[in-house]
Amino acid sequence: MNKTIGVLGGGQLGRMLAESANRLNIKLVALDKPAAPAKQITAHGAHVDGSFKDPASIRALASAVDVLTIEIEHVDAVVLAEVEAAGTPVHPAPSTIRLIQDKFEQKRHLRAAGIAVPDFVGLESNSMEELARVGDLLGYPYMLKSRKEAYDGRGNFPVSSRDSIPAAQAALAGRPLYAERWCPFECELAVIVVQTSTDTLTYPAVETVHADSICKLVYAPARNISTATAAAASALARRAVASFSGRGIFAVELFLQPSGDLLVNEIAPRPHNSGHWTIEACPLSQFDAHLRAVLDLPLPPSSLLPREPAIMLNILGGAASGAHLALVDAALATPRCSVHLYGKGPGTPGRKMGHITLTAPSMSEASALMAPLVHVADQIAARVGADVPPPLAAPAPLVAVIMGSDSDLPTLAPCLDLLEKLDIPADAHVTSAHRTPAEMASFASRAAQRGYKVIIAAAGGAAHLPGMAAAYTPLPVIGVPVKGSSTDGMDSLLSIVQMPRGVPVATVAIGNGVNAALLAARILGVHDVRVRERVERYASEAHAEVRGKEGRLEGMGWREYLQGMKK
Amino acid sequence: MNKTIGVLGGGQLGRMLAESANRLNIKLVALDKPAAPAKQITAHGAHVDGSFKDPASIRALASAVDVLTIEIEHVDAVVLAEVEAAGTPVHPAPSTIRLIQDKFEQKRHLRAAGIAVPDFVGLESNSMEELARVGDLLGYPYMLKSRKEAYDGRGNFPVSSRDSIPAAQAALAGRPLYAERWCPFECELAVIVVQTSTDTLTYPAVETVHADSICKLVYAPARNISTATAAAASALARRAVASFSGRGIFAVELFLQPSGDLLVNEIAPRPHNSGHWTIEACPLSQFDAHLRAVLDLPLPPSSLLPREPAIMLNILGGAASGAHLALVDAALATPRCSVHLYGKGPGTPGRKMGHITLTAPSMSEASALMAPLVHVADQIAARVGADVPPPLAAPAPLVAVIMGSDSDLPTLAPCLDLLEKLDIPADAHVTSAHRTPAEMASFASRAAQRGYKVIIAAAGGAAHLPGMAAAYTPLPVIGVPVKGSSTDGMDSLLSIVQMPRGVPVATVAIGNGVNAALLAARILGVHDVRVRERVERYASEAHAEVRGKEGRLEGMGWREYLQGMKK
Repeated sequence: MNKTIGVLGGGQLGRMLAESANRLNIKLVALDKPAAPAKQITAHGAHVDGSFKDPASIRALASAVDVLTIEIEHVDAVVLAEVEAAGTPVHPAPSTIRLIQDKFEQKRHLRAAGIAVPDFVGLESNSMEELARVGDLLGYPYMLKSRKEAYDGRGNFPVSSRDSIPAAQAALAGRPLYAERWCPFECELAVIVVQTSTDTLTYPAVETVHADSICKLVYAPARNISTATAAAASALARRAVASFSGRGIFAVELFLQPSGDLLVNEIAPRPHNSGHWTIEACPLSQFDAHLRAVLDLPLPPSSLLPREPAIMLNILGGAASGAHLALVDAALATPRCSVHLYGKGPGTPGRKMGHITLTAPSMSEASALMAPLVHVADQIAARVGADVPPPLAAPAPLVAVIMGSDSDLPTLAPCLDLLEKLDIPADAHVTSAHRTPAEMASFASRAAQRGYKVIIAAAGGAAHLPGMAAAYTPLPVIGVPVKGSSTDGMDSLLSIVQMPRGVPVATVAIGNGVNAALLAARILGVHDVRVRERVERYASEAHAEVRGKEGRLEGMGWREYLQGMKK
Repeated sequence: MNKTIGVLGGGQLGRMLAESANRLNIKLVALDKPAAPAKQITAHGAHVDGSFKDPASIRALASAVDVLTIEIEHVDAVVLAEVEAAGTPVHPAPSTIRLIQDKFEQKRHLRAAGIAVPDFVGLESNSMEELARVGDLLGYPYMLKSRKEAYDGRGNFPVSSRDSIPAAQAALAGRPLYAERWCPFECELAVIVVQTSTDTLTYPAVETVHADSICKLVYAPARNISTATAAAASALARRAVASFSGRGIFAVELFLQPSGDLLVNEIAPRPHNSGHWTIEACPLSQFDAHLRAVLDLPLPPSSLLPREPAIMLNILGGAASGAHLALVDAALATPRCSVHLYGKGPGTPGRKMGHITLTAPSMSEASALMAPLVHVADQIAARVGADVPPPLAAPAPLVAVIMGSDSDLPTLAPCLDLLEKLDIPADAHVTSAHRTPAEMASFASRAAQRGYKVIIAAAGGAAHLPGMAAAYTPLPVIGVPVKGSSTDGMDSLLSIVQMPRGVPVATVAIGNGVNAALLAARILGVHDVRVRERVERYASEAHAEVRGKEGRLEGMGWREYLQGMKK
């Protein structure tokens, strides 16, 4: 706690690390240009002005601090090894930084450690013949990559055919290169890993969305992936990071392939853009965690669990130096948004000027609130015209209302109507346990990962739908027995309520869609205080309605009241 | 956004305001001693060294900034009025600061505005006769208070009897005083209010716990108060603050009396210790909100809603200068804790050195995690001995399992057992809709404010308990029909499931306590991913169990299997 920490680099990552250090009153000393972002929020005279690639500056920093870390991997790892040998601890290890900063060596290391990576080959030279040989080997298109100094897509070139080899050579001239097989993916995931002196911990897997090769959006946790895929991503990332030595944050970027398999794309040995959301969403942010890991302070694993779903949107510079401020203004006026600006001066196209994190009780709500901001970001990047109106962003449904047959819809109409009145997004589906069993199973087993929180299922007769849905999902399932042509609905009721031990269905009264909606609201209200308030308002309105009837009955007497009822 | 904000005072409140300003890259200039906490995290040469009571320093600050605010109200309000007249906006208004810094004037203002406050009288002098006259008027004990420069209990003296008047005179010698009637309270509440150019917004009411007259703990939202009391507290605080002019944060401290009535104790015209929890728990903290209000930036009301329940514990100095560090060490190792240290140097007894905020999916979990830290804080303050072991802190129950008669307990035992296995804190109660109707109503109507999230109710025969409980609570109620002596449980089932429109009961199968527990887990798992994982693990274990049976049946043939079942 009373150690001084030195950081190679003082950009936005160093600045956010400094925020964490400030909170714990830990002195952070940055090596970077004068008035770099990290230096602006740490008022002491000990910062080192210079380049994080300059040996003398690195040595000067080392002499001023107790422990060294990095916010960028493109540093002089040889000098870091030297200062470490001279007695200043460096995290992560200089050998790790050296390995990771050369992407070809990084990939070879990972493959040797048994980590799944895209197919890749080293290049003997950058000649036409060599690039053509690689084309024959990997097929077209393939990805030509600079081994070093590559970030945000700079240093990558997709070679679409033999004809585009000269363009590739020109774009990456003079750089040591390697090549990767083209890797189609369903989505890109990232896992922030913390390596401590005793543990390798992870934040939940997130989904990253890139535009123009730069990280644009991060959804945390990742949308639309199963619990099993999320667990596999964490496990793979943990294994990958455990193969490197040194403490601190590592970010592991992954491809989720159409087959469902995961590949490690690349690793950053430092806090990462895909982990900024942790500042608001988790008890300990990636910067808190990096600081604690480097200083060997305690790091309780459950402090990495998010409080709420979060979306991070980068604030990137546009064509004009102040173009990004339109996004800042929009974010300030958007509910549940936190805005970070890095103190970098005027914007340039694609430059990371800041970011926005939005958290909400559900990803559905977060996405709907974020949609207009994404539109502004796209306008700044000239991906959509300035005159294009923002999309209408309806929140994704939280309640799935399913029925075995459209003949159940009249029973469910009051349910859907009330959900709408209670401002709970819901949608309706026909899926039959008996006539479309596979579709029903697929729907129910994917419901949780699609963001549904509650399922309401109506069925009549041998009413299997609610129970079968419950068998395929960990979500609460509410069953509505529909009265059929015989037994007055008793067949439906018993088919729904008499579930065996292990698979509960929350059954409501025969034909009572309204109570199904109210039960869903009570369930959502367990966490969301706004929904709870709507439930209470509904109850007090019902109370007032009954009291009103009592008043009228008392006032007019029962005969006249009954007369009125008959009209 | 590109305005410079000046702050009178650079202590911990100024420092946390500077954190918010740094995030938005807004320049904050503090007037206080050199290297005051706020200055440590804002690296520019524009800070003003001096006292926030010194007219020349205030004028120097005003000349360097676009707008002025305060982090302490004991400033020179006359000079502030002068700089405001000269063209530098001041928030809150100097007239508000002047009114509030004199507690007697503050109370008179509030009473004139129709705000409920404790009974109080002004003193003509500090003489024995005058203090005795006040004793006759207000009764003993009464509270003698300094009108100015009072904080953290300093400046207050309880006058227990006529005999203690000389001690009171000595303690508060030379200070202008007023007196308040002794005010017994159930608990102390606080509401952080934000006054913007167009709105008066509030964070949820919190519960504050003081020890030795200093704020020790804050529970957010307040425990054990009804929705109606919370709403009344917010409304009263909003009305009180709306009576003052000027933008920014105001903290309103309230007494909840045994009658249920609320009184305003006092108001601070700035961010406040009772609002520190908002940094972690809300999308916008009180410091973010203060900054936005003062600079007239947008402030979406729903950004003040907490993501999770939170508890704040102050880190106060102890007898030795580093005594408080024991609490810091304990907090670093505690899950879900964020630690703030203010950079104040060595600790002195009772000095606010930092604070801890802990958030969790439920107040139950937050309290259990916080309990050992409260114990360490009490040891530092010498309220408990160093050799006293920490209390065993079991989390408060999230699920209430209620039964109309202890004869239902055998049905509920597997339910309670499974809840324990799923690590869901629960407790059991006997309360009958028919034999103890008032107690049942009281239990159900207070269940939500006591922290329960789900109610499981079992009953047999004319089984009214689940439905009656549901009528008194907005929580989801799960009904378990118990099989009685006739109709094989059908009477219980229909009594529970056939609820009228408006009041749902989530009914499970007759006698199926296990499914009630699993349904409660599915409901809690909607928000708490750890519970969701336990539900999924239970399902996969059940899956493996059935698959195992299938394997054995296939292996040994049905005859031998049946033989084995008969043993």
